[in-house]
Amino acid sequence: MTATNKPGLEVCLSPALLHLFDVKNSIVVIIDVLRATSTICTALYNGASRVIPVSSVEECVHIGRAIDGITAGERDGKVAEGLVHGNSPFEYPRDFIENKTLVLTTTNGTKLLHMAKDAIQIITGSFPNISAVCDYLIAQNKNVILGCAAWKDRVNMEDTLFAGAVVNRIKAHFEVNCDSAVLAESMYQAAQPDLIGFMKQASHYRRLANYGLEKDIAYCLTPDGANVLPLFKDGELIAG
Amino acid sequence: MTATNKPGLEVCLSPALLHLFDVKNSIVVIIDVLRATSTICTALYNGASRVIPVSSVEECVHIGRAIDGITAGERDGKVAEGLVHGNSPFEYPRDFIENKTLVLTTTNGTKLLHMAKDAIQIITGSFPNISAVCDYLIAQNKNVILGCAAWKDRVNMEDTLFAGAVVNRIKAHFEVNCDSAVLAESMYQAAQPDLIGFMKQASHYRRLANYGLEKDIAYCLTPDGANVLPLFKDGELIAG
Repeated sequence: MTATNKPGLEVCLSPALLHLFDVKNSIVVIIDVLRATSTICTALYNGASRVIPVSSVEECVHIGRAIDGITAGERDGKVAEGLVHGNSPFEYPRDFIENKTLVLTTTNGTKLLHMAKDAIQIITGSFPNISAVCDYLIAQNKNVILGCAAWKDRVNMEDTLFAGAVVNRIKAHFEVNCDSAVLAESMYQAAQPDLIGFMKQASHYRRLANYGLEKDIAYCLTPDGANVLPLFKDGELIAG
Repeated sequence: MTATNKPGLEVCLSPALLHLFDVKNSIVVIIDVLRATSTICTALYNGASRVIPVSSVEECVHIGRAIDGITAGERDGKVAEGLVHGNSPFEYPRDFIENKTLVLTTTNGTKLLHMAKDAIQIITGSFPNISAVCDYLIAQNKNVILGCAAWKDRVNMEDTLFAGAVVNRIKAHFEVNCDSAVLAESMYQAAQPDLIGFMKQASHYRRLANYGLEKDIAYCLTPDGANVLPLFKDGELIAG
């Protein structure tokens, strides 16, 4: 809390900067727009009982076997060896994922999630659940860190854009004393008239477009297609 | 060099991210707009024979005594104990600094400068010497990293704005495959119609304004008031 009696709202642009933030006294939003946190909200929205985020393919295989879960994860744009599904939100429609557990391995998002484990609460966010995220953050009235998963610690456009979109929506309820938040919001405002067109400048866009994933990108940048709140609790993400 | 045969142009938003960049094969521009790199170009523009950047007050005192230099540096907005001058560019007019050596201690800028020591070449940049910086970078035709000194590793607005201004000016000559560069340029474009007004959102603006330094800020954000190129060589910055 600050002198204005409003809680703080900050943006952490890379996991390599997270040590600069007061994680313990904040809600942390894990942001990995392409595609982990878009797929997480989609699976939960379509009725998955839970999503278990894990770091390694081995762990994914091991847990998936133990609990009879759907194992998913990609390495270099392909389903990782030993796993059954990929990272695309389109792989998880209701008739497939309802009442099942998704065990998902992602590199950047899972790493940040584990780094933020001491937070008051961890949630995940992306454009498909932006309204659920914003409503929750406003209602909690606590300090917030918007944590971009980035790409191997390098600041990326899509996660920063989402952070900027959230700042833009909820800033009136918070004290924003964070230059990264101003930066993210500026980029979001510049991009907002044509988010997908703007994203064509991004390094990750080119990587995914090379795999033919333009449809995934468009979905991941569109608000409220899977408007549910993933809450992290005891190692699992469940719909809040 | 990249497939297009143009050298790369990247932006590093914080010293805590510098390890992600290929410093060895790049020219690194050290950016510490408020106020180290603004004061450095001003002193050199006004005829200082050289500027020696040092990390600590002790080192500053020691070197200043050994070479009969002007010792300068601030801690918490005041001239540091044992030093004679401060960080303001206005303290270094020609009739004072000409043919003298300025020994300057700054926290963020000097730290980054030492971290980048393996670069092909280190130069320093700020708005007062933006044209000299841009002309030099275009002429060299080598990879460039625009290195923001930031504030205790936290991304800051003024250094990001300068990086964005440089990207905006020189990008046609480079391959820009760096989301931070797009981010910085977006913020610069948003800020550009009223740079000083925009900066009032910045954390550092408030810190300096509390010390009555609005005039310094305006100078540090104005292009080409001291349009010289500071080149780092053998521990010293000299006019290129």
